[in-house]
Amino acid sequence: MAAKRSKLKIIPLGGLGEIGKNITAFEYNENIIVVDCGLAFPEDEMLGIDLVIPDITYLKKNAEKVKGIILTHGHEDHIGALPYFLKELNVPIYGTKLTIGLVENKLKEHNLLRTVKRHCVSTGETIDLDPFKIEFIRTNHSISDAVALAIHTPVGVVIHSGDFKVDYTPIKGNAIDLQRFAVLGSKGVLALLADSTNAERKGYTMSERTVGNALEEIFAEVGNHRIMVATFASNVDRVQQIINAAYKHDRKVAVIGRSMVNVVKTASELGYLDIPENTLIDLSEIKKYNDDQIVIIMTGSQGEPMAALSRIATSDHRQLEIKPGDKIILSSSPIPGNEKTVSKVINELFRKGADVIYEDAHVSGHACQEELKLLHSLVKPKYFIPVHGEYRHLKHHAELAMMLGMPKENIHILSNGDVLELTKDSARVTGTVPSGQILVDGLGVGDVGNIVLRDRRHLSQDGLLVVVVTIDKASNTVISGPDIISRGFVYVRESEDLMDEARNVVKQSLNQCEQKQITEWSQIKSLIKDTLKDFLWQQTKRSPMILPIIMEV
Amino acid sequence: MAAKRSKLKIIPLGGLGEIGKNITAFEYNENIIVVDCGLAFPEDEMLGIDLVIPDITYLKKNAEKVKGIILTHGHEDHIGALPYFLKELNVPIYGTKLTIGLVENKLKEHNLLRTVKRHCVSTGETIDLDPFKIEFIRTNHSISDAVALAIHTPVGVVIHSGDFKVDYTPIKGNAIDLQRFAVLGSKGVLALLADSTNAERKGYTMSERTVGNALEEIFAEVGNHRIMVATFASNVDRVQQIINAAYKHDRKVAVIGRSMVNVVKTASELGYLDIPENTLIDLSEIKKYNDDQIVIIMTGSQGEPMAALSRIATSDHRQLEIKPGDKIILSSSPIPGNEKTVSKVINELFRKGADVIYEDAHVSGHACQEELKLLHSLVKPKYFIPVHGEYRHLKHHAELAMMLGMPKENIHILSNGDVLELTKDSARVTGTVPSGQILVDGLGVGDVGNIVLRDRRHLSQDGLLVVVVTIDKASNTVISGPDIISRGFVYVRESEDLMDEARNVVKQSLNQCEQKQITEWSQIKSLIKDTLKDFLWQQTKRSPMILPIIMEV
Repeated sequence: MAAKRSKLKIIPLGGLGEIGKNITAFEYNENIIVVDCGLAFPEDEMLGIDLVIPDITYLKKNAEKVKGIILTHGHEDHIGALPYFLKELNVPIYGTKLTIGLVENKLKEHNLLRTVKRHCVSTGETIDLDPFKIEFIRTNHSISDAVALAIHTPVGVVIHSGDFKVDYTPIKGNAIDLQRFAVLGSKGVLALLADSTNAERKGYTMSERTVGNALEEIFAEVGNHRIMVATFASNVDRVQQIINAAYKHDRKVAVIGRSMVNVVKTASELGYLDIPENTLIDLSEIKKYNDDQIVIIMTGSQGEPMAALSRIATSDHRQLEIKPGDKIILSSSPIPGNEKTVSKVINELFRKGADVIYEDAHVSGHACQEELKLLHSLVKPKYFIPVHGEYRHLKHHAELAMMLGMPKENIHILSNGDVLELTKDSARVTGTVPSGQILVDGLGVGDVGNIVLRDRRHLSQDGLLVVVVTIDKASNTVISGPDIISRGFVYVRESEDLMDEARNVVKQSLNQCEQKQITEWSQIKSLIKDTLKDFLWQQTKRSPMILPIIMEV
Repeated sequence: MAAKRSKLKIIPLGGLGEIGKNITAFEYNENIIVVDCGLAFPEDEMLGIDLVIPDITYLKKNAEKVKGIILTHGHEDHIGALPYFLKELNVPIYGTKLTIGLVENKLKEHNLLRTVKRHCVSTGETIDLDPFKIEFIRTNHSISDAVALAIHTPVGVVIHSGDFKVDYTPIKGNAIDLQRFAVLGSKGVLALLADSTNAERKGYTMSERTVGNALEEIFAEVGNHRIMVATFASNVDRVQQIINAAYKHDRKVAVIGRSMVNVVKTASELGYLDIPENTLIDLSEIKKYNDDQIVIIMTGSQGEPMAALSRIATSDHRQLEIKPGDKIILSSSPIPGNEKTVSKVINELFRKGADVIYEDAHVSGHACQEELKLLHSLVKPKYFIPVHGEYRHLKHHAELAMMLGMPKENIHILSNGDVLELTKDSARVTGTVPSGQILVDGLGVGDVGNIVLRDRRHLSQDGLLVVVVTIDKASNTVISGPDIISRGFVYVRESEDLMDEARNVVKQSLNQCEQKQITEWSQIKSLIKDTLKDFLWQQTKRSPMILPIIMEV
C-alpha cells in the first residue's frame, strides 16, 4: 500500500494585497522554509510609525520547524524585517553575494552579526534543506544578484519568481535564465508564484541599458554645468551607468547620502560596481574642479525630506548649494504616494535655477504583461498564485493567466495568512494562520496599536484641551482650577475669550456635580468632557481631544 | 503735452506656484477688479485644516477701489473662497449662468444670498467697470460655461485664458472661440495670462466626446450587470454623456452623493443638462429594476473617504452594496496626491467582485503643449505671464513661449504678491503686496497658524505625556502627584513599567527643585520636561510632547 503522502503548504504572511513586507512560508510535515522577510513603509494614517513588519506568530509557534530563510534579493521589502525576525527566531539565512552583503550591513546595525549564520549562494546552485531543495535561478531586477527560486519538494516543484523583469542586455551579469524556467516547465511545475507589480501595464519593460543611453544624451549636451543624479541607492546597475557616463565625459564623481554611500561601498567591495581609478572624489573636493568636471550621485529621488536631494533643494545641505544651470536628473519615478513630495523638490530646484529632468531617465524593475506571459508560457505551471501586489495587481495577473488558458479554478488569489495545501492534483485553501502588521516606532516593536494611532489621529486633526482640577478629598470641593491648557487647537493669544468661556462651562459642570453630589471621578470627568465638547463644537465646529484630570489633596 | 498715463498693475494673490486658490487683481489708478476667488485644498502637513483661502489684506486695505469680482468658471479653485471674501468685501460678482448658479448654492450655505449682487454675463458680452471693459470669450474646460477674459484697459488689452482646452467637438455649446482670440491678437494684445496646468504634456488633450465613445463601448459590452460611474460632480458634460449612454441602453439613472445631486439639480434647472423624461430615479427605487436597467452616477472618483464611492467600497453606504459583476467606472484620473486613496478604493471594489475600469474613461480639461502653442500664436501677446501652476508648470510654459520666439525678458514668472506694472512698452515687477494662505478649520478662519500646526504635527508623530503636580503654596512642597497621563504614546496596559519609571524620573526632578530651592514655575516645568524627554528618548527613541502642569493650592 502506498504511503499517504503529505501535502505541501504555502502560507504567505506578507506581500499579498499590498506592496511591501514580502514573506512566504513553505511547509512540508515538520519542516518550514521562509522565502524573504521584508518590511513595509507606513501608510499615511500610521502617524509617527517608522516601519511595518510582518506578524510571524505562526512561525514562532512552530519555531523548531523553521529551517532557514531564503532571500530573493536585497530590497527593503524583502530583507528589511530580518533583524526583527532573527531576534525572535535565529535561523540561517541564504542569499546571493550582494544580497547577503546588504543584509550584513543591517545585522551590524542591530548587533546580530556574530549570532546569525549567513550562506552565500550562487545562481545555478541548489541548497539542501531537507525535504526541500532550493535552486537559485538568475533573474534581472532593479538590483543586482536577484534570483527566482525553484523549490523542489516531495509533492512537486514550486517556482517563486522573486521580483523580476526580462532584460536581454543587463549591465552586470547575464540575462534572466529563461532556459532554466523552460526546462523546469517541460518536466512539470506544480505551482508558480509570480511578481504582479506591473501586471496592469501593457507591453514590456525596457532594458536598464536604455537608461544609460538616455544619460549619455543628457551628459553629451549639458555643456559647462554640474550634473547631479538622484536615484535609488540599491540600483547598483544604475549607479554603474552614471559612473560610466561620468568617466566617458571626464567628470569626477562624488557620492552623497548615507544609504548611497553604504551601498556603493558594499557593492564595489563585493565586485558589483566597477569604479575607474581616480574617479571617486569626496564632496569636499568638488571646489577643486570646474563645473563641467563634476557629477554628484545622491539619495532623495523620492523627495524624502531627510535625504540629500531634498536638503539641497531647501538649502539645508551644509556642503552643497544649487547654482543656476546645474543639471539635475531624477533617475527614478515616484512610487505611488510620493508624487507630491517629489513634486515639491522639483519645484524648489527649478526655483533655484536648476534644469531638472524627471522623465525618461528611468525604467521599471518589474515585468510588464508581455514578460509575465513569457514566464507563464515557459513554466506552464499547474497552479498559479499571483504575489507581490495589491489586490488590483493580483486580479489583473490572474486574468492574464486565464487569458493564456489556465483554468480559473487553478488560480488562487490568496490573502496573507491563507494556508494553501497542494498535492500533485489539488490546491485548496484549507484554513488560515495569524498574520498581519506589527508597527515599529522608535525602539518599540508592536507597542503602538490601533488605540495609540486613533489618539494620534484625533490629536492631529483638532488638537487637545487638558482640564485640570484639584479637589479636596475631605470636603469634596474644588480648591484649585479648573485650569485649561490647549495645544494644537487655537492660537491662544487670539482666543482668550473662547478659553474664558470654556473655563466657565467647566465651572458650571463642576457646580452641577457638587449640587447633585456626584463624587465618582469617572462621572465628573464624563460630564466635563461632554459639556465642553458640545460647547466647543458649537463655537468652532472643531472637536479637540479633551483630557479632564482630577488631582486629589 | 501728453498727460502722463498711469500704469496697469497685475497683482496675483493666489494661483502661482501652486494649483489652487486662483485670484488676480488688476489695478489702474483708483480702480481694482479681481479675477476669480478660489480656495486650495490643504496640504498633507496642514493637519485638521479643511480648506485654504487667499490672504486678501491688500484688497481690504484698498476696499474702496475694488469694483467687482469676475469669475472665469465654477470650479472650487476659482470660486471656493468667495463666501469668505464677500464677508470682508461685499462687491458685485460677474460670471456666466452656470458659474453664478453654482456660486449661489455657496452663498446660500453662508447666508449671503440676499446681500451679494450677482450678474449673469453671456459669452460674447462685454461688461463695463470703468476704466476696465471686460469681454467674456467662450472656451472649453471640464465644466460648462467657462470663459477667458479680454480685459480692455487704457494701457492695452490683457487676455486671461481662465482654465481652458481646445475641444472642437464639445458636448454642450460651441468650441472655444479661436477666432476672437485671433482678432484681438491681430489688433494687438499687451499681455497674456494663460493656464499652465498641462504645460509639461506633449501633444493635445482629446475631446470630451471621446469619453462618450469609451463609455458607449463599455455600456455595450457589459451584459446583465449594473453600471456605476464615479466622476467629478462639476463636469456636467461628463454627466450628460453618461446619461446619454444610459438612455441609449434603456437604463435608468440614479444620482448619489451630495455635490453630485446638487450640481445635477442646478445644471438641469439652468438648462445645462438634458435629462430625458423618466430617466432619473431615486436610489431607493433601484430594486424595482433588473441589474441591466441601472446606471448609478456618484461622487468619490478621488477616493474621498466621505464620498459615495468610498463608502460603498467599504460597505458603509446604507442603501447600496457592491455585487459581484457590478461594472464600476472611474471616469476621472487621480489628482496628484490622491493616488493612494484612489488605489485603496479600487482594491476594495475588486475584492468585492466588481469589475473596475479606471483608465481610458477620462480626458483632461486643460490644454497641453500644442493647444498652448495655438493660443500663443493666435494672441501674439507682447508680454506673457504663465499662471495656474506650480513653479515647474510655469517654467515649462515660459519655455514653450520662448520656443515660439517670445523674448525671454518679456516673460514674467511671478509669485503671489508680486506687482507687475505695465505700460504700452514695458513690464516690470516693481514691488510686492501681502499675500499668502489663510487656513480654515471648522468655523475658524485664520486662527490656526504655524504654531498650532506644529503642535498638531508633534502630537501626531509621538503623542503626548501630561505631567500634573499639585504644590502647596505656603510650604512650596509637592502635595499631590506627579501623575502622568499619556495619549498616543504607548499602549499603556503593556507599558506600566515604563510609566512607573517615568514617574520616578519626574519625582527626582522635583526633589532636585526642592533641594536647590527652585520655586520659579517655568524653571520647574523646564526641568521636568528636559529630564523626562531624555529618559523617554533613551528608553524608546520617541519624543512625545511633554506638558508639565502645576496646580497650586
